[in-house]
Amino acid sequence: MPMETTSSEPSLNSRWKRLQAKMLEFKADACIIASNVNLFYLSGKVFTGYFYLPVEGEPVLFVRKPLGWSDEKVVYIRKPEDIPALLEAKGISIPKHILLEADQLTYNDFIRLQAVFNPEKTSNATTLLRQIRSIKTDWEIEQFRISAKKHAEVYLHIRGCYSPGMSDVEFQAKIEYVMRTHGSMGFFRAFGSNMDIYMGSVLTGENAETPSPFDFALGGEGTNPALPIGSNGTLLKPGTSVMVDMAGNYTAYLTDMTRTFSIGKLPEIAYRAHQLSIDIQDAIVEKSKPGTSCAELYLLSLQMAERAGFSNYFMGTKQQAKFVGHGVGLEVNELPVLTGRSKELLEPGIVLALEPKFVLPSIGAVGIENTFLVTDTGMEKLTLFEENIIEL
Amino acid sequence: MPMETTSSEPSLNSRWKRLQAKMLEFKADACIIASNVNLFYLSGKVFTGYFYLPVEGEPVLFVRKPLGWSDEKVVYIRKPEDIPALLEAKGISIPKHILLEADQLTYNDFIRLQAVFNPEKTSNATTLLRQIRSIKTDWEIEQFRISAKKHAEVYLHIRGCYSPGMSDVEFQAKIEYVMRTHGSMGFFRAFGSNMDIYMGSVLTGENAETPSPFDFALGGEGTNPALPIGSNGTLLKPGTSVMVDMAGNYTAYLTDMTRTFSIGKLPEIAYRAHQLSIDIQDAIVEKSKPGTSCAELYLLSLQMAERAGFSNYFMGTKQQAKFVGHGVGLEVNELPVLTGRSKELLEPGIVLALEPKFVLPSIGAVGIENTFLVTDTGMEKLTLFEENIIEL
Repeated sequence: MPMETTSSEPSLNSRWKRLQAKMLEFKADACIIASNVNLFYLSGKVFTGYFYLPVEGEPVLFVRKPLGWSDEKVVYIRKPEDIPALLEAKGISIPKHILLEADQLTYNDFIRLQAVFNPEKTSNATTLLRQIRSIKTDWEIEQFRISAKKHAEVYLHIRGCYSPGMSDVEFQAKIEYVMRTHGSMGFFRAFGSNMDIYMGSVLTGENAETPSPFDFALGGEGTNPALPIGSNGTLLKPGTSVMVDMAGNYTAYLTDMTRTFSIGKLPEIAYRAHQLSIDIQDAIVEKSKPGTSCAELYLLSLQMAERAGFSNYFMGTKQQAKFVGHGVGLEVNELPVLTGRSKELLEPGIVLALEPKFVLPSIGAVGIENTFLVTDTGMEKLTLFEENIIEL
Repeated sequence: MPMETTSSEPSLNSRWKRLQAKMLEFKADACIIASNVNLFYLSGKVFTGYFYLPVEGEPVLFVRKPLGWSDEKVVYIRKPEDIPALLEAKGISIPKHILLEADQLTYNDFIRLQAVFNPEKTSNATTLLRQIRSIKTDWEIEQFRISAKKHAEVYLHIRGCYSPGMSDVEFQAKIEYVMRTHGSMGFFRAFGSNMDIYMGSVLTGENAETPSPFDFALGGEGTNPALPIGSNGTLLKPGTSVMVDMAGNYTAYLTDMTRTFSIGKLPEIAYRAHQLSIDIQDAIVEKSKPGTSCAELYLLSLQMAERAGFSNYFMGTKQQAKFVGHGVGLEVNELPVLTGRSKELLEPGIVLALEPKFVLPSIGAVGIENTFLVTDTGMEKLTLFEENIIEL
């Protein structure tokens, strides 16, 4: 099995420096991180404990588990209350203004850390870290390229996963198996406590219209009300589309890529809507360069859908998602979000997914999604694979 | 594909009544729930929004997404700040003492809800709900029986998934495929923000010793430092064990079942340690009835491991988990926990997993795990499958 031996970036210094620069701006003395995704981003490791970064100097990793790490930056603790004395022993003064992950820590965990440091002021590390993480390093961009290549390799096998008469769930299970034998990590992370999903989404026929409780682009009923997302056992029928939006989790950095398949031929409207999705993507790419407003790109997609008379099918029918793209990285929904309210401008190093999709009643979903890198002059497509509707 | 058409319990009334009884005890006026797991437990649905239960009367579901639900209990909102006026319109008075999920909501979500109601007092709904959820209804117990049966059916296929020379990851991918074609939901929930895992765990050889950052019984390196758990690409070699602890997620109610396989014959010590695991399980079952102390059951397991001279291998080597069992349900780690500090006594309706496991250097992990129902007189084993080491 071809397994990628990806690990973490050799030097994480530049990430610490960027966080420290932001801390200086905020007049914060220290940042204390406890979420898995930010622990991994800042230390290259996932552990139970805290990543402590003072506004100047080196970080300290306060670790509860796993045992057995020998690293000069690691200090073992039993509980967060051990930290202040350990900081003082290292000659680091107790911070007065701390940054904690207010959108990731539970209320009780947040309050407990606050009590440990008893600071004069606490600010939110979540938004700051999401902003910093949205600009990728060269090493991170290389990880996306590895994921994108595998993602395309796996999608080449999708036609071979189909056999007539199968259900969307059976089709998806075969794709998942191909993914896993190509090095998919299985699991992937999403920002927000309510974003449950498993490996990605396969949507066909009427199920594509089912509204979602989650902030993903499209919905689907799922196989159990405990996980109301994606495939629901619908049989793959001639004349319906099958939208495959399975995860690009072949490294820690996720690519997002959707392709539309068809069982036999689709009604002509499906091909027009699909071409419109490609046209919207191309128009957004044409307009994108550093400084472009993310909100404008969303509005452009709305206008194009409207002019073509497809507004009622854009990003859903019964419920329509109000974005056309989003950052990707260690989480599948990073910053920026391409929505009407976005304040963000494109910057070099941003990696984002564009997903102008249409849902056609009784046919299914059509359209594409690709992952792009914002360069100094425009956007580079990372996920390279046939974009037309592929007949199964 | 045999798909279970499981859904939610026809009447959730008894769950509301139990929560209201606890609220009365706590002198709370209302409970406001937002986590997916508790939304599903109390409403049978997952949605973005809030389940509102006053201490007397019927619940109200304040829903943001999905759109399109027509149920007399559903009130659509745009944001939580809409709730107080909508309550007043229904003649429900604004609560002065509210219960919020302090161990599940993020700090910012918690603070925002507090500001919406501006109560005199806020208490923690998380622990309360975990206690209520630990005693299962007859309908829930039936769901475990469905999961357990599928779990055993899938484990019957495990020998067929093996072929000489494969890695633990390849073996696991084949088992996952069988799981999915037998109705596995894929995803499963764990309590605690740091409990990342995917479909379960396959551990072989030296990888079984790798300490985990998480609160699962055993560890494993994983295939990427971003997800340091489970199989890591180790080749399945003669003389090593393969511990399979894959999820029983065939309904929303999870069964937990571990079996040990071997590549050829194992050293004699492995069979002794495995028999000790079975003996510990049987001794715990023998001692268990309503009123039995969970802490005592853990101490019994420690004593038996020690008397047999296997203390150093019990629940890990380099890092040893300090529990021998745990409740299961909508989450894989529910209450009670069988650990030295447990205050809980067994009660009828508790469903728990017992997992006395041993890790043997250079061989791998051995032992079993089964899911049990606490009855009026003792414990009933729900996961029925060959318990001896199975040669691949």
